[in-house]
Amino acid sequence: MSAEGGTSFCREWSKVFDPASVAVVGASNFPGKWGFNMPLFLLGGGYRGRLFMVNPRERRVLGLRAHPSLTSIGEEVDLAIVAIPARSVPAAVEDAAAAGIKALIIVTADFSESGPAGAALERELAEAACEAGITVVGPNTMGVFSSSSRLCALGAPVFPRPGGVSFISQSGNLGVQALNAGRRLGIGFARFIGSGNAANTDIPDYLDYLADDPLTRVILIYAEGLKDGRRFLEAARRAALSKPVIALKAGRGELGRRAVRSHSGALAGDIGLFRSACRQAGVIEAESSDELMDLAAAFSVLPTPAGEKAAVMTLGGGWGVVAADACDREGLELAQLPASLIEELDLLLPRFWSRRNPVDIVGNVRRANHLRIIESLVECPEVDLLISMGTLLGRGFFLDNLLNTALRPFLHLLFERPAEVPAFLLSLAKGSLRSLRRRGSFDREGSGGLDLTETRAWTDSYLSSYLQKLMDRSGKPIINVAVNERENAASRSLRRYRIFTAATPERAVSVAAKMARYARTRGSALASCPSRPRLLGEAQPLNMPEKVEGSGLAPK
Amino acid sequence: MSAEGGTSFCREWSKVFDPASVAVVGASNFPGKWGFNMPLFLLGGGYRGRLFMVNPRERRVLGLRAHPSLTSIGEEVDLAIVAIPARSVPAAVEDAAAAGIKALIIVTADFSESGPAGAALERELAEAACEAGITVVGPNTMGVFSSSSRLCALGAPVFPRPGGVSFISQSGNLGVQALNAGRRLGIGFARFIGSGNAANTDIPDYLDYLADDPLTRVILIYAEGLKDGRRFLEAARRAALSKPVIALKAGRGELGRRAVRSHSGALAGDIGLFRSACRQAGVIEAESSDELMDLAAAFSVLPTPAGEKAAVMTLGGGWGVVAADACDREGLELAQLPASLIEELDLLLPRFWSRRNPVDIVGNVRRANHLRIIESLVECPEVDLLISMGTLLGRGFFLDNLLNTALRPFLHLLFERPAEVPAFLLSLAKGSLRSLRRRGSFDREGSGGLDLTETRAWTDSYLSSYLQKLMDRSGKPIINVAVNERENAASRSLRRYRIFTAATPERAVSVAAKMARYARTRGSALASCPSRPRLLGEAQPLNMPEKVEGSGLAPK
Repeated sequence: MSAEGGTSFCREWSKVFDPASVAVVGASNFPGKWGFNMPLFLLGGGYRGRLFMVNPRERRVLGLRAHPSLTSIGEEVDLAIVAIPARSVPAAVEDAAAAGIKALIIVTADFSESGPAGAALERELAEAACEAGITVVGPNTMGVFSSSSRLCALGAPVFPRPGGVSFISQSGNLGVQALNAGRRLGIGFARFIGSGNAANTDIPDYLDYLADDPLTRVILIYAEGLKDGRRFLEAARRAALSKPVIALKAGRGELGRRAVRSHSGALAGDIGLFRSACRQAGVIEAESSDELMDLAAAFSVLPTPAGEKAAVMTLGGGWGVVAADACDREGLELAQLPASLIEELDLLLPRFWSRRNPVDIVGNVRRANHLRIIESLVECPEVDLLISMGTLLGRGFFLDNLLNTALRPFLHLLFERPAEVPAFLLSLAKGSLRSLRRRGSFDREGSGGLDLTETRAWTDSYLSSYLQKLMDRSGKPIINVAVNERENAASRSLRRYRIFTAATPERAVSVAAKMARYARTRGSALASCPSRPRLLGEAQPLNMPEKVEGSGLAPK
Repeated sequence: MSAEGGTSFCREWSKVFDPASVAVVGASNFPGKWGFNMPLFLLGGGYRGRLFMVNPRERRVLGLRAHPSLTSIGEEVDLAIVAIPARSVPAAVEDAAAAGIKALIIVTADFSESGPAGAALERELAEAACEAGITVVGPNTMGVFSSSSRLCALGAPVFPRPGGVSFISQSGNLGVQALNAGRRLGIGFARFIGSGNAANTDIPDYLDYLADDPLTRVILIYAEGLKDGRRFLEAARRAALSKPVIALKAGRGELGRRAVRSHSGALAGDIGLFRSACRQAGVIEAESSDELMDLAAAFSVLPTPAGEKAAVMTLGGGWGVVAADACDREGLELAQLPASLIEELDLLLPRFWSRRNPVDIVGNVRRANHLRIIESLVECPEVDLLISMGTLLGRGFFLDNLLNTALRPFLHLLFERPAEVPAFLLSLAKGSLRSLRRRGSFDREGSGGLDLTETRAWTDSYLSSYLQKLMDRSGKPIINVAVNERENAASRSLRRYRIFTAATPERAVSVAAKMARYARTRGSALASCPSRPRLLGEAQPLNMPEKVEGSGLAPK
């Protein structure tokens, strides 16, 4: 509505993301109201600054003294959260201006998204805020999260794990549910902004801030409509030079565009234009809400591949075919395996293995071979990244297998044919002894059977740390696929070892293709940039080129 | 390889799916070998028929007496599982023929998929089997599951829940992992067949059997290559007249086709031809492995919609936009809400709700309103199906919410500002009292706050049974989306109440679109069919048209 206000004043971002004190206008004791939830979740998130309650009709809110107005607090307030009906918001903005407050989060809805009257009200408050030099997040926003100040100024009880991902979301609900999913997927967040109706501060402004924010290593965007495509393009391009920017654009078709109009009051614009802007700016476009989170997880834990040649390893041929199909669809290359590598694998696989990529290890159950195949593939110079299917095992591996392969038949025998139990156990014991005697050997004629001495190598933790070391050494990403595992097990492993695990081969390939494309376009963007921007130092490097000292184009 | 043999003899399917006795050729005591796993999993699955071990070099296998050959058993064997190296398989087929066995599951690999020598060997065994009237599943198969005889003749420890879904999979690994996923998603299976290299029995033969199988209510197919497109088309068309047939075709692009060649030895053929065959036959095509399972779950528990007009209800606008975009993409219509319905909803929603479909309930936290909105939408004559987002809550709802909204801030206060705790608790108590006094009322100005008396209505079980009753009454499907829930909770609820829950709005829309299209094409297929085929009676009807007595075209 007031994009013109977007650049007309200098924003004090520290007041939004690192406020020393927060006031809640419309603070309430009524359970479930925004004015109740916001301070409660601020407390729950462990916010350590000072907290002021504003409500002229209450004496205390959540145990804290309630002030009749912002000006009556009489102490410095960095950030005010406004949760009162729309018609009262302009007065609150005046009050904030009078109190010298420079940052507002206006959660109230019923502005430009609800029609012309709301739009007029929104313009009014935007102008007043700009005049007073106030940065407004919202209105119609779910709020802000900031890890540095433990600020959970959100309308939902979501307490993200701190980390390197920052998320600008035009939808609050989608945003906080993504933060929630992030907890499950092991994604840590630096900042979250529900941009809402963006009265005087919009996605490009947040992008500018996040581009220079040292805590932010990956930027996510969920956008419905862009008020100023050119400004978005400029901001996105600048941000994408120093860190991966991943965007999901909604409002693509006719139904979607109409839904956008009534949701955020924005004009959805043409998806083709957005797509070409993304391509120009080096922004990675996500195709679905799932993929947005997959990409966030992958970019925050994996090294970027040097090229687009993938090796695919699979326990069973079908998944290999599904992955190859996905490579066709996503434009990911399958690496040609050099003859020397095929010879190497010949020693580790049954005689009749396919000798091509995808490498179908034909149900091989020797873990030592399995791991040596992974290592050979990753270390092959023809391979830029590995997609590995059937490698992660889930926490219940031992229990499940013991139950399913030994205990289950044993119980059936015990209850149905008890006379056969002693002979059954004797056979198991004899077989196990035989397996132990033949440990280390490998029969290339078919299924070689288990090597029972490999027990430890079959655990999640062993494999995860093995893969992590391999990635550290090679600088190449390994994308795991855990098709038949419980999601929990995979995500626990992910959290602990920073291994990205995709739920299906299709999703793994899609992530791999986007990482590879990013690496390529990023390489050319940096090459064409007269003085390459400074890259941010990181504890867990994203495998970017070496640091280059800044200049005119670089973030300050 | 020998499609010509495909129809040249009469298959005794009961020997494959309901064998009274099973022999394992190549039975072994060596852990991990196929000859060890198969009988172990047969026992583990609770197979109750007689089990014979065949191995000339062992005295006992898994406690059972080992016979030197099939002929030496001296008792009737319905089904033999062959797990010996490829070069010895032809002799085993001869042995089976001599013993009068009519069904073989040949798990051995290294046949047509590995090159010309293997192909010759496969032809040889196929011819011998056809001559002897033996139905061969495989070679290179993961095996067979059949719920009626509790037959888990599989190479992996997978024990599906019995149910109405049957699955023909050209990939064993993908197949058994789907069976595994089915356990998690609450999908019950009637039969599973790993068709493997399909020496003398192929997908169309299995389709013919499943079309008439009273236990099978939904048919899934994973196909890489079809040896005889015409036969597939005929069989699929016949099957699709009596039950939903859902197919995932792999080997679509160049990389995929090459991967198929080396996996199952099949020719992948053209995806365009397959697609048009599916359309002609009334087969529902899945686009990904995820979608195959989504469709299986949805078709096995939901009524079929009468048309293509969807209502979308969402707790937050962003997800509504994402769903509307998906509708654009998948060709699903959004129902126009009649004025009377809008008036009805006006009473239940904040003043500024969008008054259109998707219905954004703007974070409404009154459960009574929430449920009445769902009911109004489902009962609206303009609406054929409902996609409902943010309705399922997960088992941890109370615990999570108690922890996050009350306990968490309390603990922070306790440890950081203990002096404020008494006043905090007093405020909470006062607010709760106020909420209880205002129960049933609803403030249309904004977030109305919680009604603490609605506690029970917020549980999973309450909602699930509510939705189930609504579906039973209206005959319209309700597809839930559980974006922010743990998958476990959603699937547990699904299992218990037969509610289909999609993981994202995109997946929900995709399933809804395919169900709607199925309903339409099925309607026209039935109309154009001179005498409509008999439909199978079912305990949990799939909401198909009334039964019509059979005739020439009907399954026998």
